[in-house]
Amino acid sequence: MRKWIATSVAVTATCLMAGTAAAQSDEDKIEYREAVFTVIGGNFGPMGKMVEGKIDYDAERFARNADRVAYMSQMALEGFRGGPHEGDTHAKDAIWEQWDQFEQGMQKLQDASGELAEATAGGDAALGDVQGKFMDVARACKNCHDNFRAD
Amino acid sequence: MRKWIATSVAVTATCLMAGTAAAQSDEDKIEYREAVFTVIGGNFGPMGKMVEGKIDYDAERFARNADRVAYMSQMALEGFRGGPHEGDTHAKDAIWEQWDQFEQGMQKLQDASGELAEATAGGDAALGDVQGKFMDVARACKNCHDNFRAD
Repeated sequence: MRKWIATSVAVTATCLMAGTAAAQSDEDKIEYREAVFTVIGGNFGPMGKMVEGKIDYDAERFARNADRVAYMSQMALEGFRGGPHEGDTHAKDAIWEQWDQFEQGMQKLQDASGELAEATAGGDAALGDVQGKFMDVARACKNCHDNFRAD
Repeated sequence: MRKWIATSVAVTATCLMAGTAAAQSDEDKIEYREAVFTVIGGNFGPMGKMVEGKIDYDAERFARNADRVAYMSQMALEGFRGGPHEGDTHAKDAIWEQWDQFEQGMQKLQDASGELAEATAGGDAALGDVQGKFMDVARACKNCHDNFRAD
Protein backbone atom coordinates (compact mmCIF):
# COMPACT_ATOMS: atom_id res chain seq x y z
CA MET A 1 0.00 0.00 0.00
CA ARG A 2 2.82 2.36 0.87
CA LYS A 3 4.43 1.87 -2.51
CA TRP A 4 1.13 2.41 -4.29
CA ILE A 5 0.68 5.72 -2.53
CA ALA A 6 4.20 6.86 -3.35
CA THR A 7 3.70 6.12 -7.04
CA SER A 8 0.38 7.83 -7.01
CA VAL A 9 1.80 10.96 -5.43
CA ALA A 10 4.55 11.22 -8.02
CA VAL A 11 2.25 10.71 -10.96
CA THR A 12 -0.61 12.90 -9.84
CA ALA A 13 1.80 15.66 -8.89
CA THR A 14 2.98 15.73 -12.49
CA CYS A 15 -0.58 15.69 -13.65
CA LEU A 16 -1.40 18.82 -11.75
CA MET A 17 1.37 20.99 -13.11
CA ALA A 18 -1.03 22.69 -15.45
CA GLY A 19 -3.68 23.22 -12.86
CA THR A 20 -4.30 23.65 -9.20
CA ALA A 21 -3.96 21.08 -6.47
CA ALA A 22 -7.37 21.40 -4.93
CA ALA A 23 -8.47 24.98 -5.52
CA GLN A 24 -7.56 25.77 -1.94
CA SER A 25 -5.55 28.97 -1.83
CA ASP A 26 -7.19 32.26 -2.71
CA GLU A 27 -5.09 32.54 -5.85
CA ASP A 28 -5.99 29.00 -6.85
CA LYS A 29 -9.67 29.76 -6.42
CA ILE A 30 -9.42 32.91 -8.51
CA GLU A 31 -7.45 31.08 -11.20
CA TYR A 32 -9.97 28.24 -11.25
CA ARG A 33 -13.08 30.39 -11.50
CA GLU A 34 -11.53 32.63 -14.15
CA ALA A 35 -10.58 29.54 -16.13
CA VAL A 36 -14.18 28.35 -16.02
CA PHE A 37 -15.32 31.70 -17.43
CA THR A 38 -12.56 31.73 -20.04
CA VAL A 39 -13.81 28.38 -21.33
CA ILE A 40 -17.40 29.65 -21.27
CA GLY A 41 -16.40 32.80 -23.15
CA GLY A 42 -14.27 30.91 -25.64
CA ASN A 43 -17.27 28.81 -26.57
CA PHE A 44 -19.93 31.47 -26.28
CA GLY A 45 -17.97 33.85 -28.51
CA PRO A 46 -18.34 31.94 -31.78
CA MET A 47 -22.05 31.45 -31.03
CA GLY A 48 -22.38 35.22 -30.73
CA LYS A 49 -20.60 35.72 -34.02
CA MET A 50 -23.03 33.31 -35.65
CA VAL A 51 -26.03 35.13 -34.18
CA GLU A 52 -24.59 38.42 -35.37
CA GLY A 53 -23.93 37.00 -38.83
CA LYS A 54 -20.19 37.60 -38.60
CA ILE A 55 -19.46 33.96 -39.28
CA ASP A 56 -21.65 31.37 -40.97
CA TYR A 57 -24.14 29.59 -38.79
CA ASP A 58 -22.99 26.03 -38.11
CA ALA A 59 -25.77 24.22 -36.25
CA GLU A 60 -23.50 21.42 -35.05
CA ARG A 61 -20.83 23.73 -33.69
CA PHE A 62 -23.52 25.93 -32.16
CA ALA A 63 -25.01 22.90 -30.41
CA ARG A 64 -21.63 21.64 -29.24
CA ASN A 65 -20.71 25.02 -27.81
CA ALA A 66 -24.13 25.42 -26.19
CA ASP A 67 -23.63 22.10 -24.47
CA ARG A 68 -20.24 23.24 -23.22
CA VAL A 69 -21.56 26.54 -21.88
CA ALA A 70 -24.34 24.70 -20.06
CA TYR A 71 -21.91 22.16 -18.65
CA MET A 72 -19.41 24.79 -17.54
CA SER A 73 -22.13 26.94 -15.97
CA GLN A 74 -22.49 24.20 -13.35
CA MET A 75 -18.91 24.94 -12.24
CA ALA A 76 -19.21 28.71 -12.28
CA LEU A 77 -20.26 29.30 -8.70
CA GLU A 78 -17.93 27.09 -6.72
CA GLY A 79 -14.77 29.16 -7.12
CA PHE A 80 -16.49 32.08 -5.42
CA ARG A 81 -17.44 30.22 -2.24
CA GLY A 82 -15.80 31.36 0.97
CA GLY A 83 -14.61 34.69 -0.41
CA PRO A 84 -13.73 37.44 -0.91
CA HIS A 85 -10.35 36.05 -1.94
CA GLU A 86 -7.09 37.97 -1.97
CA GLY A 87 -5.53 38.37 -5.39
CA ASP A 88 -5.89 39.76 -8.89
CA THR A 89 -9.61 39.46 -9.46
CA HIS A 90 -12.50 41.15 -11.24
CA ALA A 91 -14.91 40.02 -8.54
CA LYS A 92 -16.62 42.80 -6.61
CA ASP A 93 -17.17 42.41 -2.88
CA ALA A 94 -20.88 42.74 -3.70
CA ILE A 95 -20.77 39.04 -4.56
CA TRP A 96 -20.32 38.08 -0.93
CA GLU A 97 -22.37 40.98 0.45
CA GLN A 98 -25.32 39.90 -1.72
CA TRP A 99 -24.57 36.22 -1.99
CA ASP A 100 -28.19 35.10 -2.42
CA GLN A 101 -28.64 37.46 -5.34
CA PHE A 102 -25.36 36.32 -6.88
CA GLU A 103 -26.35 32.68 -6.45
CA GLN A 104 -29.68 33.38 -8.13
CA GLY A 105 -27.87 35.04 -11.03
CA MET A 106 -25.67 32.00 -11.45
CA GLN A 107 -28.76 29.79 -11.33
CA LYS A 108 -30.27 31.88 -14.13
CA LEU A 109 -27.14 31.26 -16.19
CA GLN A 110 -27.46 27.53 -15.55
CA ASP A 111 -31.15 27.52 -16.41
CA ALA A 112 -30.84 29.64 -19.56
CA SER A 113 -27.80 27.80 -20.89
CA GLY A 114 -29.43 24.46 -20.07
CA GLU A 115 -32.48 25.44 -22.10
CA LEU A 116 -30.31 26.58 -25.00
CA ALA A 117 -28.35 23.33 -24.93
CA GLU A 118 -31.58 21.38 -24.94
CA ALA A 119 -33.03 23.41 -27.81
CA THR A 120 -29.90 22.97 -29.93
CA ALA A 121 -29.20 19.32 -29.07
CA GLY A 122 -28.95 17.17 -32.14
CA GLY A 123 -27.16 19.89 -34.08
CA ASP A 124 -29.92 20.60 -36.58
CA ALA A 125 -31.77 23.55 -35.07
CA ALA A 126 -32.48 26.57 -37.25
CA LEU A 127 -30.81 29.72 -35.94
CA GLY A 128 -34.12 31.58 -35.87
CA ASP A 129 -35.51 28.97 -33.50
CA VAL A 130 -32.74 29.27 -30.93
CA GLN A 131 -31.49 32.85 -31.02
CA GLY A 132 -34.09 33.92 -28.46
CA LYS A 133 -32.72 31.37 -26.02
CA PHE A 134 -29.19 32.45 -26.91
CA MET A 135 -30.09 36.00 -25.92
CA ASP A 136 -31.48 34.72 -22.61
CA VAL A 137 -28.04 33.31 -21.86
CA ALA A 138 -26.36 36.55 -22.93
CA ARG A 139 -28.65 38.50 -20.60
CA ALA A 140 -27.84 36.14 -17.73
CA CYS A 141 -24.14 36.88 -18.30
CA LYS A 142 -24.73 40.60 -18.51
CA ASN A 143 -26.89 40.80 -15.39
CA CYS A 144 -24.17 39.34 -13.21
CA HIS A 145 -21.40 41.29 -14.90
CA ASP A 146 -23.25 44.56 -14.39
CA ASN A 147 -23.70 43.92 -10.70
CA PHE A 148 -20.77 41.82 -9.65
CA ARG A 149 -17.86 42.23 -12.04
CA ALA A 150 -15.36 45.09 -12.01
CA ASP A 151 -13.72 45.98 -15.32
CA MET B 1 -33.37 42.76 -38.10
CA ARG B 2 -30.92 45.62 -37.82
CA LYS B 3 -32.14 46.45 -34.33
CA TRP B 4 -31.95 42.80 -33.29
CA ILE B 5 -28.33 42.61 -34.35
CA ALA B 6 -27.41 45.82 -32.57
CA THR B 7 -28.91 44.54 -29.32
CA SER B 8 -27.21 41.22 -29.75
CA VAL B 9 -23.82 42.81 -30.30
CA ALA B 10 -24.13 44.93 -27.18
CA VAL B 11 -25.25 42.10 -24.97
CA THR B 12 -22.87 39.44 -26.20
CA ALA B 13 -19.95 41.85 -26.02
CA THR B 14 -20.65 42.21 -22.30
CA CYS B 15 -20.95 38.50 -22.02
CA LEU B 16 -17.47 37.95 -23.33
CA MET B 17 -15.65 40.25 -20.98
CA ALA B 18 -14.50 37.34 -18.90
CA GLY B 19 -13.43 35.27 -21.85
CA THR B 20 -12.22 35.43 -25.37
CA ALA B 21 -14.15 36.45 -28.45
CA ALA B 22 -13.50 33.44 -30.59
CA ALA B 23 -10.13 32.05 -29.49
CA GLN B 24 -8.55 33.64 -32.54
CA SER B 25 -5.39 35.45 -31.54
CA ASP B 26 -2.37 33.48 -30.36
CA GLU B 27 -2.79 34.85 -26.84
CA ASP B 28 -6.46 33.94 -26.85
CA LYS B 29 -5.62 30.39 -27.90
CA ILE B 30 -3.01 30.04 -25.19
CA GLU B 31 -5.38 31.49 -22.58
CA TYR B 32 -8.16 29.16 -23.69
CA ARG B 33 -6.13 25.97 -23.67
CA GLU B 34 -4.52 26.80 -20.34
CA ALA B 35 -7.96 27.48 -18.91
CA VAL B 36 -9.09 24.04 -20.04
CA PHE B 37 -6.15 22.45 -18.23
CA THR B 38 -6.69 24.60 -15.14
CA VAL B 39 -10.24 23.27 -14.90
CA ILE B 40 -8.99 19.72 -15.48
CA GLY B 41 -6.33 20.13 -12.79
CA GLY B 42 -8.73 21.78 -10.36
CA ASN B 43 -10.99 18.76 -10.57
CA PHE B 44 -8.32 16.08 -10.85
CA GLY B 45 -6.49 17.43 -7.81
CA PRO B 46 -9.07 16.47 -5.19
CA MET B 47 -9.39 13.03 -6.79
CA GLY B 48 -5.64 12.57 -6.37
CA LYS B 49 -5.88 13.60 -2.73
CA MET B 50 -8.59 10.99 -2.20
CA VAL B 51 -6.50 8.30 -3.88
CA GLU B 52 -3.54 9.30 -1.73
CA GLY B 53 -5.70 9.27 1.39
CA LYS B 54 -5.03 12.94 2.12
CA ILE B 55 -8.74 13.67 2.16
CA ASP B 56 -11.64 11.31 2.75
CA TYR B 57 -12.91 9.44 -0.25
CA ASP B 58 -16.23 10.87 -1.40
CA ALA B 59 -17.59 8.66 -4.17
CA GLU B 60 -20.07 11.26 -5.40
CA ARG B 61 -17.49 14.02 -5.63
CA PHE B 62 -15.01 11.63 -7.21
CA ALA B 63 -17.60 10.70 -9.85
CA ARG B 64 -18.58 14.31 -10.49
CA ASN B 65 -14.95 15.34 -10.94
CA ALA B 66 -14.22 12.34 -13.14
CA ASP B 67 -17.09 13.35 -15.38
CA ARG B 68 -15.68 16.86 -15.60
CA VAL B 69 -12.18 15.69 -16.45
CA ALA B 70 -13.58 13.45 -19.18
CA TYR B 71 -15.75 16.24 -20.54
CA MET B 72 -12.93 18.80 -20.49
CA SER B 73 -10.51 16.38 -22.13
CA GLN B 74 -12.61 16.71 -25.28
CA MET B 75 -11.63 20.40 -25.41
CA ALA B 76 -7.96 19.91 -24.62
CA LEU B 77 -6.61 19.62 -28.15
CA GLU B 78 -8.34 22.42 -30.00
CA GLY B 79 -6.39 25.31 -28.48
CA PHE B 80 -3.16 23.84 -29.85
CA ARG B 81 -4.29 23.69 -33.47
CA GLY B 82 -2.48 25.94 -35.92
CA GLY B 83 0.49 26.61 -33.64
CA PRO B 84 3.07 27.23 -32.40
CA HIS B 85 1.49 30.38 -30.97
CA GLU B 86 3.36 33.44 -29.82
CA GLY B 87 3.01 34.22 -26.14
CA ASP B 88 3.59 33.06 -22.59
CA THR B 89 3.17 29.33 -22.93
CA HIS B 90 4.41 26.04 -21.50
CA ALA B 91 3.90 24.33 -24.84
CA LYS B 92 7.02 22.92 -26.45
CA ASP B 93 7.46 23.20 -30.23
CA ALA B 94 7.60 19.40 -30.18
CA ILE B 95 3.79 19.50 -30.11
CA TRP B 96 3.66 20.76 -33.68
CA GLU B 97 6.77 18.92 -34.82
CA GLN B 98 5.24 15.63 -33.65
CA TRP B 99 1.57 16.50 -34.00
CA ASP B 100 0.38 12.95 -34.62
CA GLN B 101 2.05 11.75 -31.44
CA PHE B 102 0.61 14.67 -29.52
CA GLU B 103 -2.84 13.99 -30.89
CA GLN B 104 -2.53 10.34 -29.88
CA GLY B 105 -1.53 11.41 -26.38
CA MET B 106 -4.60 13.61 -26.14
CA GLN B 107 -6.72 10.74 -27.39
CA LYS B 108 -5.30 8.58 -24.60
CA LEU B 109 -6.35 11.22 -22.09
CA GLN B 110 -9.85 11.24 -23.55
CA ASP B 111 -10.07 7.45 -23.54
CA ALA B 112 -8.69 6.97 -20.04
CA SER B 113 -10.76 9.75 -18.49
CA GLY B 114 -13.84 8.52 -20.32
CA GLU B 115 -13.33 5.06 -18.85
CA LEU B 116 -12.85 6.50 -15.38
CA ALA B 117 -15.99 8.60 -15.71
CA GLU B 118 -17.92 5.54 -16.81
CA ALA B 119 -16.57 3.42 -13.97
CA THR B 120 -17.46 6.04 -11.36
CA ALA B 121 -20.82 7.10 -12.80
CA GLY B 122 -23.59 6.79 -10.27
CA GLY B 123 -21.34 7.97 -7.46
CA ASP B 124 -21.22 4.72 -5.54
CA ALA B 125 -18.00 3.08 -6.75
CA ALA B 126 -15.53 1.78 -4.17
CA LEU B 127 -12.17 3.53 -4.38
CA GLY B 128 -10.35 0.23 -4.79
CA ASP B 129 -12.39 -0.51 -7.90
CA VAL B 130 -11.53 2.73 -9.69
CA GLN B 131 -8.05 3.73 -8.56
CA GLY B 132 -6.44 1.71 -11.35
CA LYS B 133 -8.40 3.67 -13.92
CA PHE B 134 -7.53 6.87 -12.07
CA MET B 135 -3.85 6.02 -12.45
CA ASP B 136 -4.38 5.44 -16.19
CA VAL B 137 -5.58 9.04 -16.45
CA ALA B 138 -2.66 10.27 -14.37
CA ARG B 139 -0.25 8.43 -16.68
CA ALA B 140 -1.91 9.95 -19.73
CA CYS B 141 -1.32 13.40 -18.23
CA LYS B 142 2.26 12.58 -17.37
CA ASN B 143 3.14 11.14 -20.78
CA CYS B 144 2.18 14.34 -22.58
CA HIS B 145 3.74 16.58 -19.94
CA ASP B 146 7.03 14.71 -20.14
CA ASN B 147 7.21 15.10 -23.89
CA PHE B 148 5.40 18.28 -24.69
CA ARG B 149 5.29 20.58 -21.68
CA ALA B 150 8.09 22.89 -20.55
CA ASP B 151 8.18 23.75 -16.86
